[in-house]
Amino acid sequence: MSDCIFCQIAAGQIESDIVYEDELVVAFRDLNPQAPTHILLIPRQHMGSLDAASDEDIQLLGHLTLVAAQIGRSEGIAEDGYRLLTNVGPDAGQSVPHLHFHLLGGRVMHWPPG
Amino acid sequence: MSDCIFCQIAAGQIESDIVYEDELVVAFRDLNPQAPTHILLIPRQHMGSLDAASDEDIQLLGHLTLVAAQIGRSEGIAEDGYRLLTNVGPDAGQSVPHLHFHLLGGRVMHWPPG
Repeated sequence: MSDCIFCQIAAGQIESDIVYEDELVVAFRDLNPQAPTHILLIPRQHMGSLDAASDEDIQLLGHLTLVAAQIGRSEGIAEDGYRLLTNVGPDAGQSVPHLHFHLLGGRVMHWPPG
Repeated sequence: MSDCIFCQIAAGQIESDIVYEDELVVAFRDLNPQAPTHILLIPRQHMGSLDAASDEDIQLLGHLTLVAAQIGRSEGIAEDGYRLLTNVGPDAGQSVPHLHFHLLGGRVMHWPPG
């Protein structure tokens, strides 16, 4: 069993509120939501952060990003809007060392983005 | 000539401080930087936002995301960290209706992300 909590969520070893999954990615609700809709999207394959991605991951990254847009529509926030982001490393406050994107919507998002 | 300011930047019709470009994407410094490093990445092809992307754009989206990681390294912020995000629609404060990702680093980013 992996030590990585997001690998464990992807493998179904830790319960989470999953909103979407396929063979490549899993999306689930953040336990500490910062907006009415706050969903995390992860690749099933372990990758420390976006900085660990390589040319072989282009299809996966594009797919994950497009799934985020699909979830925006299924969550009913596509029209009003949402912010999609990933944190890399300590300055960004990356909390789990497994690549994940945050999808936040359902409220006005402010600027600067943190 | 397109009315879209980012199409004009991509076409070289408006000057910008370009840090990277290839046949698919252009990256340039934001005119109102919110961090020591603040770069915008856009596809050359016009697309209103991430919500306008379709399956045909998976390769493009993946490429753009990977280019962001490459720029993170070339800007020297990959180790300390950075935040990569895109705003969709009014709630997110999307200011230009041409898909763009913000890459911000060189300082501690706060939470929530706006």
